[in-house]
Amino acid sequence: MTAVVSVFSASPDGGRGLARDMAVRWALIEAGVAHDLRTLSFAELKTQAHKARQPFGQIPTYEADGLTLFESGAIVLHIAETHGLLPQDYAARARAIVWMFAAVSTLEPVIVEREVAVLLECDRPWTPERLPLIAARLRARLADLADALGDRPWLEAGFSAADIMMVCALRRPAAVLLLPEFPAVAAYVARAEARPAFMQAFADQKARWQADQARRA
Amino acid sequence: MTAVVSVFSASPDGGRGLARDMAVRWALIEAGVAHDLRTLSFAELKTQAHKARQPFGQIPTYEADGLTLFESGAIVLHIAETHGLLPQDYAARARAIVWMFAAVSTLEPVIVEREVAVLLECDRPWTPERLPLIAARLRARLADLADALGDRPWLEAGFSAADIMMVCALRRPAAVLLLPEFPAVAAYVARAEARPAFMQAFADQKARWQADQARRA
Repeated sequence: MTAVVSVFSASPDGGRGLARDMAVRWALIEAGVAHDLRTLSFAELKTQAHKARQPFGQIPTYEADGLTLFESGAIVLHIAETHGLLPQDYAARARAIVWMFAAVSTLEPVIVEREVAVLLECDRPWTPERLPLIAARLRARLADLADALGDRPWLEAGFSAADIMMVCALRRPAAVLLLPEFPAVAAYVARAEARPAFMQAFADQKARWQADQARRA
Repeated sequence: MTAVVSVFSASPDGGRGLARDMAVRWALIEAGVAHDLRTLSFAELKTQAHKARQPFGQIPTYEADGLTLFESGAIVLHIAETHGLLPQDYAARARAIVWMFAAVSTLEPVIVEREVAVLLECDRPWTPERLPLIAARLRARLADLADALGDRPWLEAGFSAADIMMVCALRRPAAVLLLPEFPAVAAYVARAEARPAFMQAFADQKARWQADQARRA
């Protein structure tokens, strides 16, 4: 049975692979699971039909084996549990799940805070003054992450779903701006982006975005 | 073997049970697992000894069975997997984990955004104008949550770890301010707070906070 993943029909990221389906499609390619896409316009996201799949009217969703799931972290964890993207060792597996939660709950909110400021409050007079405050908060998190990573190539006992979630958070623009200050973290992201499965997942969404642009032109 | 949970020696919440160890201790009491506490001052949180347990210098951590875990969501998921706080049905179990991620990744960041504004940017001239913008974003999330909950007592097939994580997010002040507009969500939180395990977890931290205050007086 082929999985179905909901994605934006025209992602607002301009084909940079920043929409939250990226982690799900990357995980599926790492796991060798075939999948189809359901492309949705912004209007379709807010319909009852889609909210029955995703109560907050967002992407991605994941349908397979009679399941309908949302939340990229939960979907990637489900794929990881069923297709071997977590360490086999008991303690390392539990720690990898810790890092999945750290990605979406400790790193990503501070990263998204800057996106909210830039996108939703861009016309507000306070935003230029707030950006350095947000950057300082994010810098503290990245420094701690760099210390925790040390000189290991991946967060926990080999590449795992933890790295998929963490790298997808770190690829967002607010983090990318600061990565030059944290060379070990920058190298970690680059190492992940060089994986064939990442490159395939990235190329897929870029081709889709370009085709959509060509259709509109 | 007794689990050990790291908590604040003096929580800044004044005994209101808002620190992130609340979800972990609540889950342990629901599961009937004995636990001890390691109380940490703010200075102790930032030591190398604690950062070896929690790279971001936060609470809670959880130690048991040779594991050292952090991130309240990951700890509660681990307790839930090992002590039956997830639905047994395959699809319902996966959906409960979805709701755990939704709590920490979709609801809580918008709730915490208001806390950051009130606590870290309270002296900034823009904060009074920003609060209604943040409230509008949170209101949209709460409306979607109310629709998803409908008239069910719990998020997924009986009380589960999903409700522990969601209710702990919804008990934070920014959400509590808006709950009167969403009676089904308010009733859901009240239903959870009436559980004996919640009441025990709440009373434990309140007694600890009061004892600490008396010691300082």
